[in-house]
Amino acid sequence: MLYKKILLAIDLTDESIKVANKAAELSKAMGAELVIIHVIEALNYAYGGDVPIDITDIQNQLKETARERMTVLESQIDVPVKETCVTQGGIESEIHRIADEKDVDVIVVGSHGRHGLALLLGSTANGVLHGAPCDVLAVRVHRSE
Amino acid sequence: MLYKKILLAIDLTDESIKVANKAAELSKAMGAELVIIHVIEALNYAYGGDVPIDITDIQNQLKETARERMTVLESQIDVPVKETCVTQGGIESEIHRIADEKDVDVIVVGSHGRHGLALLLGSTANGVLHGAPCDVLAVRVHRSE
Repeated sequence: MLYKKILLAIDLTDESIKVANKAAELSKAMGAELVIIHVIEALNYAYGGDVPIDITDIQNQLKETARERMTVLESQIDVPVKETCVTQGGIESEIHRIADEKDVDVIVVGSHGRHGLALLLGSTANGVLHGAPCDVLAVRVHRSE
Repeated sequence: MLYKKILLAIDLTDESIKVANKAAELSKAMGAELVIIHVIEALNYAYGGDVPIDITDIQNQLKETARERMTVLESQIDVPVKETCVTQGGIESEIHRIADEKDVDVIVVGSHGRHGLALLLGSTANGVLHGAPCDVLAVRVHRSE
């Protein structure tokens, strides 16, 4: 079969369910295992340098919220999820690391499919594509603006 | 089903069969129609300006070669191909135009998955991703170097 193991990378925004449903359908059609990852961008990454306050509490809070949202999302899709990971670091590098570690066949990620705003928002699909150890399925999401 | 119509975009190099086989497997798993496109980059695109010679013969030769290679490729994959297109223009814009015109659900394209050389070679997967009217599956190909 085409794919045995699928890594769904989500940002846990409202759009995630659309991307998750596509990954779930793909998983069903292929009989493939589904692993879901959410990367919490380390705050010093997001702000481009050292943060002069103790951010441990904030980071922990972010992790807790992420895990709660992950649970909700998992309950909304109709295929069994093999594993969920909430990890911290650079978004693309963490996705690639987990893809490699778990030897997945394809990464599924949302894409805004546009030049302008996508670049401002940080074009994750594009970043995931470069350097990916496997295939990448970019699922087109239309942002409501 | 996840996808009803798949557009496979290929450059007709030796790597194309790998990408084509993935598209064929996806088509089989989904019961989806498969359309194949090859874009001949207009020579004035490729050389970034007007070409001061009559290039009609060269372009016709390129088209003929492309159609021959398309026929060979079609015979190598084991699913029926609904339609093949050989078109001319900018690679990404032509792929997007045909995807839109034929209302496809996903574009399948090869990707070298690397930063450095991929940029030099013209990162088509990346270009196809931006502005695509649908999902994009980038199939990782390892170039033999």
